[in-house]
Amino acid sequence: MSQNIYDNPEFFSAYTQLGRSVHGLDGAAEWPLLRSFIPELAGKRVLDLGCGFGWFSRWAREQGASSVAGYDISENMLQRAAGLTSDDNITYQRADLETLELPDTSFDFAFSSLALHYILDAARLLHSIHNALVPGALLVFSTEHPIYTAPTHPEWQILPNGSRIWPLDSYLKEGSRSTDWLTKGVIKQHRTIGTLVSLLTGAGFGIRRLQEWCPTDEQIALRPELAEIRERPMFLLFAAQRE
Amino acid sequence: MSQNIYDNPEFFSAYTQLGRSVHGLDGAAEWPLLRSFIPELAGKRVLDLGCGFGWFSRWAREQGASSVAGYDISENMLQRAAGLTSDDNITYQRADLETLELPDTSFDFAFSSLALHYILDAARLLHSIHNALVPGALLVFSTEHPIYTAPTHPEWQILPNGSRIWPLDSYLKEGSRSTDWLTKGVIKQHRTIGTLVSLLTGAGFGIRRLQEWCPTDEQIALRPELAEIRERPMFLLFAAQRE
Repeated sequence: MSQNIYDNPEFFSAYTQLGRSVHGLDGAAEWPLLRSFIPELAGKRVLDLGCGFGWFSRWAREQGASSVAGYDISENMLQRAAGLTSDDNITYQRADLETLELPDTSFDFAFSSLALHYILDAARLLHSIHNALVPGALLVFSTEHPIYTAPTHPEWQILPNGSRIWPLDSYLKEGSRSTDWLTKGVIKQHRTIGTLVSLLTGAGFGIRRLQEWCPTDEQIALRPELAEIRERPMFLLFAAQRE
Repeated sequence: MSQNIYDNPEFFSAYTQLGRSVHGLDGAAEWPLLRSFIPELAGKRVLDLGCGFGWFSRWAREQGASSVAGYDISENMLQRAAGLTSDDNITYQRADLETLELPDTSFDFAFSSLALHYILDAARLLHSIHNALVPGALLVFSTEHPIYTAPTHPEWQILPNGSRIWPLDSYLKEGSRSTDWLTKGVIKQHRTIGTLVSLLTGAGFGIRRLQEWCPTDEQIALRPELAEIRERPMFLLFAAQRE
């Protein structure tokens, strides 16, 4: 099973204070781009993989989704999510995405925000999602960019000439990375873009969109710390279609 | 028009000494992977964009292609290419890929090796290629990886902790880069993977393969200098299909 870092008290306490935890989708700077990948949801049966506090699940219902099934490995996250809605057409279930079994052709849209980089067996999960979707349905997801996950020492460096650079190495060396983010020893899986594309096409998806999120000028004016994303991307966004 | 660096005497003289110039396709370490993207060519009308010395054009004929049209901006390259074949079904023409006009639906396969990163208006070129192909035909191409083209100072660095790193910056800042490779001031166009995918889908191509070339253990045993590619990729390979 993947590491359940969201049930680590130190991590969870820090995570609840992030903008995306306090302000939901509007607190996630990549959301406007990710949202643009999402089709009309009215009447659709929606899957939300790594649903966290349920921000997307509730939004999908506001857009007219007929039902939303949210899955997450974290008991902390699911408890909070359950407390934030009384909508009977949203169901939250605890599940490890490494082993999650889904009913065949039962969903019209699948979504996953920043969960795939925790998953060891992404091929298995993508096959499961493919089987759970009806033909023609979209999977829209974000994941950490491999430029962000690759380095042995993922910290900005100042070179002797004064340049501030991201110390890239090990890009084509895939596998686990242990980093300190909110707490020590958070385990993520580093996969190249090429591998992600191969896993998607191998599972029977066609690639419809692939973008490396870049903050807009307006976003940088409001949050100057986002400017560093233009130096090295942080998130990769996909729309893939069950063929 | 793009810079015609191959007709710069200093550049051309150095270029002719590279393994890929002396040994052709087998001297290009990424060729085995790129070749695996190429469909059966027997009876096909083939387009070779940025044909250089014509290694691919001649190989395509050996595979049974009915004809090959090779285009290149460099007079030096085309003269050499013409001297290497007497095959009437290979035609070489001088053309700037920025403005090249091709007949509609006249080719069954298009190939381009390491030319796209010189092109300013990649959208126009990809639309042209799309129109020149018959429906269902593949475009297979390689281009420099944006991790390789992005940095302001694209040279390996040793950090104080002894790590050897690639100093990534400006990844999401697209546009021209001037680098010193074989000669000073070689101009390349830096585009992200997301942009390349958007340009392809925008031109009407479906993404069939996308891989970041990684040298094999056998290649590294023979040429240890290739090991650095595993730290930061150099070439990006695509197969795209006219839909």
